[in-house]
Amino acid sequence: MKVILVVCDGLGDRPVRALGGLTPLQAARADALDRIASEGECGIMDVIAPGQPPGSDTAHLAIFGYDPFACYPGRGAFEALGVGVELQPGDVAFRCNFGTVNEDGVVIDRRAGRISSEEARQLAEALKEVRIESVSGVQAIFHHSSEHRGVLVLRGERLSRHVSDVDTHKAGVRPAAPRALDNSPEAERTAKALQEFLEKAGRILAEHPLNRDRIRRGLMPANTLLPRGAGTLPRIEPITKIWGVRAAAIAGGGLYKGVAKAVGFELIHVPGANGTVNTNLRGKVEAAIRALDDYDLVFLHVKATDNVSHDKNPAKKVKVIEWISRELMPLVEKVSSEGYYLAITGDHTTPSEVGEHRGDPVPLAIMGPDVRRDDVRKFDEISCARGALCRIRGTDLMRILMNYLGRVPLFGE
Amino acid sequence: MKVILVVCDGLGDRPVRALGGLTPLQAARADALDRIASEGECGIMDVIAPGQPPGSDTAHLAIFGYDPFACYPGRGAFEALGVGVELQPGDVAFRCNFGTVNEDGVVIDRRAGRISSEEARQLAEALKEVRIESVSGVQAIFHHSSEHRGVLVLRGERLSRHVSDVDTHKAGVRPAAPRALDNSPEAERTAKALQEFLEKAGRILAEHPLNRDRIRRGLMPANTLLPRGAGTLPRIEPITKIWGVRAAAIAGGGLYKGVAKAVGFELIHVPGANGTVNTNLRGKVEAAIRALDDYDLVFLHVKATDNVSHDKNPAKKVKVIEWISRELMPLVEKVSSEGYYLAITGDHTTPSEVGEHRGDPVPLAIMGPDVRRDDVRKFDEISCARGALCRIRGTDLMRILMNYLGRVPLFGE
Repeated sequence: MKVILVVCDGLGDRPVRALGGLTPLQAARADALDRIASEGECGIMDVIAPGQPPGSDTAHLAIFGYDPFACYPGRGAFEALGVGVELQPGDVAFRCNFGTVNEDGVVIDRRAGRISSEEARQLAEALKEVRIESVSGVQAIFHHSSEHRGVLVLRGERLSRHVSDVDTHKAGVRPAAPRALDNSPEAERTAKALQEFLEKAGRILAEHPLNRDRIRRGLMPANTLLPRGAGTLPRIEPITKIWGVRAAAIAGGGLYKGVAKAVGFELIHVPGANGTVNTNLRGKVEAAIRALDDYDLVFLHVKATDNVSHDKNPAKKVKVIEWISRELMPLVEKVSSEGYYLAITGDHTTPSEVGEHRGDPVPLAIMGPDVRRDDVRKFDEISCARGALCRIRGTDLMRILMNYLGRVPLFGE
Repeated sequence: MKVILVVCDGLGDRPVRALGGLTPLQAARADALDRIASEGECGIMDVIAPGQPPGSDTAHLAIFGYDPFACYPGRGAFEALGVGVELQPGDVAFRCNFGTVNEDGVVIDRRAGRISSEEARQLAEALKEVRIESVSGVQAIFHHSSEHRGVLVLRGERLSRHVSDVDTHKAGVRPAAPRALDNSPEAERTAKALQEFLEKAGRILAEHPLNRDRIRRGLMPANTLLPRGAGTLPRIEPITKIWGVRAAAIAGGGLYKGVAKAVGFELIHVPGANGTVNTNLRGKVEAAIRALDDYDLVFLHVKATDNVSHDKNPAKKVKVIEWISRELMPLVEKVSSEGYYLAITGDHTTPSEVGEHRGDPVPLAIMGPDVRRDDVRKFDEISCARGALCRIRGTDLMRILMNYLGRVPLFGE
């Protein structure tokens, strides 16, 4: 018995004035989603806790069955894994932007004029020569990922993720000096190593011919690095081991690949899957259908619903939902004909009039041979609330699915 | 104000193909159950946690209001109490089978050819002479219960329930030597005492005239004991003390009597109540009706629904549900006319196509003068999910009932 979990990012919404008071899911014609609801059992889910806006990282930890309050290790490691960086236990990873500072050290652009991937890669190459000397036994490894983005890994003994962000998310101010967020010597060591890396990297970048050339061309030089979101690998048992399943994940966005990899999913690469509204969704769905032949648990992530929510574009969200629904139909057919399980939900609510994550519950529907089919016929936030699942927590979902797969051991006799 | 809690074991189910996709509860004509739902408030209940298959012991602890993750003490003590063995704090009790081993010590029958109660009782008598010498201050007490079944109690200081099962639940292999499941000296002592008891008991049984006679008659000798499920009394406050109620339990199955007794219920004996489909259900219901005159909280357990579920007989489950419903009607009348409360639920889901416990929620209905009557008219897994109770946890039930009895103290001012 097998199950596929489809998560549409930021799927949950609120009544939208421009949609006549309907949510985008209510307004959409989404035959595949409604079929899952009709043939399945429905409910709503507090991914973290009622009213608690989840981050995408904590949300996915919860949906994969891990209590983020107990095991959330910061975002950095997930980002690093998501762009293919191999991490070791103890590594502290940071998301990094290439940025531009002026002669006073004030950030004038957090993305270095949206420097190209090609140029950023050359700069990243030059950063390999940085050696950490102020803290013993620590190595700094910088990986470029795409455009102005990269990942910094501090590797060595006695490091901590409890160091502050350097990136203030604002232009017009100096980057924040990294500082320890607790009184541990580990956090002090980490902040010190990070500070040294930034100073040395700044000098290398400022003098790099590529940046001098950019200045000549009237472009912003990528003369600083802005780390944020220090994170480590979570200390958890892999999902494959907890439930005894083979598990594969299909996602475009790096973070989602990273969380999935961190908890033990194998990543399936789909060309053109890029975590945007222009993703190769058809390819992802085809890959998911194939993956069901080889894996017991398949995770399919679609980011586009969140993108249009952050853009505050409810009409576009309706269109995106309808597109996703159309593309999902072959998967629904496959699951139905094989007698597998399919669960569809969101990782959080991103109201498309607000453009930010909010703590409203998300709709959930599970179809499969043994579900208690209810009379919900439409997959939306309000219809699902009347279904046979009632209201559950995000951390309950994986156990509920594994129960259908007969993989949850008895507690007691 | 009074309340009766009726638990039908393994009541929850899934859609059954042979029943046209209905659950047994949906397929049954169960007027009394539907009346409770119609006059009451309904919901679904995760006895332990969503998706978590409960054992019958942990399930009843939860339903009685005790968190099994915090206080589950193994099954043995419940079994012992259920067959009338008086336990003391610190005692470690094991369920035991009389079994048959061949000359190589390999188990050839886990039930000693289903030896009669009368013969087993004589063998149990002979085991009284066993003295534990390898571990100081420990006494072994063996009690026969019925047929091939008994209970072994190790009594003394510094014992532990963290010892492994000797019974492997398989024939064709040797029994497992008892071993400590943690590094404590208490577990070591217990495993050692158990080992000594088993060796001495084995010698006594092998030489017992009754077994020699069985061999002559071509019957399997009961020449070994197979302990399993080491358990102690739970360290809890009795239910009577927590809520200030007089509490009585009516059950046929030993385990259920045991859990009820362990948490402080008085046991009411009903002749012919035997935990099978041939139980004296009418007698149990009559006893429950009488008990409501003398007690504030009455627990009535019916095992038959679980038996037919384990037998994978959904059609029989429908019949059993209809029978239970008919027999319960006088109780519903009594509760209704007195203005008492009645809650009906299951302790877990045993899908009758699967034949094992599963983690799907169970339906729950509570009738009584102050409940928030909803529009649910049928007592089944799907209808109840739309009721006013929504979805609760097993450990919440007792507090909800005691709240109707006005017995839950204010928290804060």
